[in-house]
Amino acid sequence: MPDDKNTPRDTSASTKAGASTKTGAGPRVRTIPDGDNRPRLVCPDCDYIQYENPLIVVGAVASWEGKILLCRRAIEPRKGYWTMPAGYLELNEAAAHGAVRETREEACAEIEIDALLAVYNIPRISQVQLIYRATLVSPDCAPGEESEEVALFDWDRIPWDDLAFPSVIWALNHYDEVRDQAVFAARTNALDNAWGEISRD
Amino acid sequence: MPDDKNTPRDTSASTKAGASTKTGAGPRVRTIPDGDNRPRLVCPDCDYIQYENPLIVVGAVASWEGKILLCRRAIEPRKGYWTMPAGYLELNEAAAHGAVRETREEACAEIEIDALLAVYNIPRISQVQLIYRATLVSPDCAPGEESEEVALFDWDRIPWDDLAFPSVIWALNHYDEVRDQAVFAARTNALDNAWGEISRD
Repeated sequence: MPDDKNTPRDTSASTKAGASTKTGAGPRVRTIPDGDNRPRLVCPDCDYIQYENPLIVVGAVASWEGKILLCRRAIEPRKGYWTMPAGYLELNEAAAHGAVRETREEACAEIEIDALLAVYNIPRISQVQLIYRATLVSPDCAPGEESEEVALFDWDRIPWDDLAFPSVIWALNHYDEVRDQAVFAARTNALDNAWGEISRD
Repeated sequence: MPDDKNTPRDTSASTKAGASTKTGAGPRVRTIPDGDNRPRLVCPDCDYIQYENPLIVVGAVASWEGKILLCRRAIEPRKGYWTMPAGYLELNEAAAHGAVRETREEACAEIEIDALLAVYNIPRISQVQLIYRATLVSPDCAPGEESEEVALFDWDRIPWDDLAFPSVIWALNHYDEVRDQAVFAARTNALDNAWGEISRD
């Protein structure tokens, strides 16, 4: 899904879940392994089973004196559009650590995490996003490798029409909603707000 | 890590991340692929790259008239010990849906999710746990395939000495902490509570 508009990184299924440089190699037959109850990708050459799991994206809505840090993407998908710093959680990394690292990598900025702002579910692409509220420790920021430009936006200057993904819009609105609250329940997107409905399906 | 005490399921790295029935087959050489910056497992036979990602565990602390639903594990790790219903999030599944499904599978119980109780990080085993607070829709429950026994415990009868994992203890204590609160910040474990400290590392 390299062109998926909900994917905050260019790390598509083919590059993140597994890839091979030899045509036809690797797990490629979908079948239910013995003792399992769901179809998995299996390599017909060596019987290796490729379990696929949802991916965790971590990110931060970070502010400096009321201004919001955004990055203009230098990579597909959504090259040229604006996003908060966010990306895939790495192995052996805590979620808040990952948000700090992504902000450092994409915006060369240092932040202090303040609260869990939101958990967004995008089941269509098997993604769970943990977005934190954070404060910049200084206004210093600069484009990292994956950004064309980074900037601190006054709230009324946020480029709403040029945001990269729905979850960027959700996160900015949720940030605004809890702006004056020290303690709040982590927000979620519409799917999960309907907890009464989904819990009985 | 099949014997890891922080793993709420028997779904260890070898069965969840990938497994092969042929000895030595599948991704097994750790090397940094071209264009990457971290070592990955590569299959020397076909060059297939096995990307490894953190896993998401979802679960619920569910109550019925003040009693807490717990399951005694029928499987390793920690067979015979008690846990809240929890397990790995599946592909194309929202986190709250997963908590409902796990409760159905492990305790044959129906719940309604009320709030995100906690996000626990266990970076040593690359696990992020999303634990919800929930209410049973009836006191009906019964052991699912992975449970030897399920029961509704009065708070002062919780088998603290026989809980399966640290995160079960964390979740129960956090449940108690926010028992009377409709709105609260999702809890986390010690690592992430030290946000001021970890955000600058």
